[in-house]
Amino acid sequence: GAVEVSVRSPVACWFSAMLHCFGGSVLSSLMLAEPPVAFLANGTNILLASSVWYLVFYCPQDRFCQCFAFLPLRLLVAGMKEVTRTWKITAGIAHANGHFKDAWLVMVAVGWARGAGGGLISNFEQLVRGVWKPETNELLKMSYPVKVTLIGAVLFTLQHSQYLPIARYNLMFLYTVFLVVSKVTMMLTRSATSPFAPIEAALGSMFFGLPKTPSKVKGEGATSSNDSSVSDRSSSEQHCDSTKKREAKKTE
Amino acid sequence: GAVEVSVRSPVACWFSAMLHCFGGSVLSSLMLAEPPVAFLANGTNILLASSVWYLVFYCPQDRFCQCFAFLPLRLLVAGMKEVTRTWKITAGIAHANGHFKDAWLVMVAVGWARGAGGGLISNFEQLVRGVWKPETNELLKMSYPVKVTLIGAVLFTLQHSQYLPIARYNLMFLYTVFLVVSKVTMMLTRSATSPFAPIEAALGSMFFGLPKTPSKVKGEGATSSNDSSVSDRSSSEQHCDSTKKREAKKTE
Amino acid sequence: GAVEVSVRSPVACWFSAMLHCFGGSVLSSLMLAEPPVAFLANGTNILLASSVWYLVFYCPQDRFCQCFAFLPLRLLVAGMKEVTRTWKITAGIAHANGHFKDAWLVMVAVGWARGAGGGLISNFEQLVRGVWKPETNELLKMSYPVKVTLIGAVLFTLQHSQYLPIARYNLMFLYTVFLVVSKVTMMLTRSATSPFAPIEAALGSMFFGLPKTPSKVKGEGATSSNDSSVSDRSSSEQHCDSTKKREAKKTE
Repeated sequence: GAVEVSVRSPVACWFSAMLHCFGGSVLSSLMLAEPPVAFLANGTNILLASSVWYLVFYCPQDRFCQCFAFLPLRLLVAGMKEVTRTWKITAGIAHANGHFKDAWLVMVAVGWARGAGGGLISNFEQLVRGVWKPETNELLKMSYPVKVTLIGAVLFTLQHSQYLPIARYNLMFLYTVFLVVSKVTMMLTRSATSPFAPIEAALGSMFFGLPKTPSKVKGEGATSSNDSSVSDRSSSEQHCDSTKKREAKKTE
Repeated sequence: GAVEVSVRSPVACWFSAMLHCFGGSVLSSLMLAEPPVAFLANGTNILLASSVWYLVFYCPQDRFCQCFAFLPLRLLVAGMKEVTRTWKITAGIAHANGHFKDAWLVMVAVGWARGAGGGLISNFEQLVRGVWKPETNELLKMSYPVKVTLIGAVLFTLQHSQYLPIARYNLMFLYTVFLVVSKVTMMLTRSATSPFAPIEAALGSMFFGLPKTPSKVKGEGATSSNDSSVSDRSSSEQHCDSTKKREAKKTE
Repeated sequence: GAVEVSVRSPVACWFSAMLHCFGGSVLSSLMLAEPPVAFLANGTNILLASSVWYLVFYCPQDRFCQCFAFLPLRLLVAGMKEVTRTWKITAGIAHANGHFKDAWLVMVAVGWARGAGGGLISNFEQLVRGVWKPETNELLKMSYPVKVTLIGAVLFTLQHSQYLPIARYNLMFLYTVFLVVSKVTMMLTRSATSPFAPIEAALGSMFFGLPKTPSKVKGEGATSSNDSSVSDRSSSEQHCDSTKKREAKKTE
């Protein structure tokens, strides 16, 4: 899909890529009624993301993608992306706290939106490319990055309200290490079973009376739709596309 | 639909319920460029709405729903919901007047959005649950609550601009009584024919040259899709869902 | 489509027409986090646009549309519409410059949104009428007015940053003359081949490595979906509708 769009309409392709990279800041700006175009004002980031986008899609003979198919490089980039996630969550929470003093739910929501924005607005990002899949979205079937960002947002909000007896930099360090380790493990083992699956099943059956087996089946189902960098993609185009997004995200 | 979603993804179900309950404040905040997450800052309301949501969907053996299937209790809750509608409309108009001095259309629009918000954004609320029905929306086929809220918004705006020679509290009292009486009548007679149907048909044929018969046919068609608490639902799940929404709305 | 909607639901039809006329200001307000209902505060414009809307859709025996089927009158109205486009672009750029000092991309984006807003949000305008076409949008397949507005926004931004050695009023004059001449030519020759087609093909093959022939085929394909006032419409209703939109747009 993505390659065809890039040939038919470079503008839509570029806009979709930008929405993927800067979705977090667009969504959190909308939620706090600030100009969602603010991300365009930072010329350096846009330039960096745009050049990565250009190299991925229009580099002759796909040289750029072939570089990033090299595993250690992919691990490095994926790790760096997870590090920025921590920064984005804490920035979102501090931002929300500036608007609404001590409103926990707002802090969690904005931190989550900032950290996982690209995933949460994926329905509208796909609409730009002419794809519309109303029957699913990241709230109905949360992918692993979205889940882990939600947990991070809750943790950092608790820390911010001083309910968690731990210093901020310690929590940031531990959370980032956890993110990077779980991401690298998932990439190396090519498995997509979330580390939270057993906890989720337990919570689900305790609070929501969910039967245990369907919950596990759902877990398997989610496997295939999980983060694209994990599963063993045969189609090199899709791989390229996900590489690009990861790389560009690094630039934020 | 709703029960299946609640089993598959409690997060999407909760978000959809919140969007239904607080849709009015989200929509009017967006229209006036204020943070749409402001409703999350009021912890008490969220807690109340969330506990009702939890009891409706996950109470063992559906005890909670069975309570609200008791008719007098349903009448009471429906009546209270209509009372809050009046408050919401006047709050919306006062709010809009603070931003745009004496702009009548803005006042009508914001008052309407605040009072009937859950209905107007129903397309997007359904999208959260993975349902997408582009061929209809509340503007194309207005339900009775949306219509009556529009009339209320026009009346209160006229009163605010002192075109209507009546005191504010008198108008509020009369409008609320009208809302409650018409709602209770509709629930008791299980009919869904809007009291405005003849007036609408007359206005339609006068200003828009509509043929009289199609307009009536449309009226019949709207019957089935009208406010869910009116029609005699056989499916108890749907009934439960609508009960929940009504109840939760009371909490606003 | 449009006539049927106007019979079934005048409210949705009116709202859709307003969204078409004032889409530019709604979109640019959203992008700069200002109240998107601000356009409703200008009573005169709304009144003018609404009366044109009323005359087009509900005038007995379609007298109003028949007037505008007269070619010289259509040319005049189309020309006036193009003149307002220049004003809207420069207003959008000045507005964006007030919020973000010297952020070029923001200026281009807001100027473009202001000038071509009705086209860019056409997906959502159609949704109000109950039509949903996710497989295409103005970014995937840009129509001529949207393209020419983008070029205008880039030119005026360059001029604003003093990269273009030309006075503002000269640029405005030249750009407006170009707009009007190209529009009138397209209306008279009933052709829809964009004057930019060869330049686009050259740029596409240079930067994006597009094969030359598919690009031309795309050009032909775009012909039929191009600006509705150009192609020789057989259906007089559609013609009426486009006339209305053009006329109403003049009122801004």
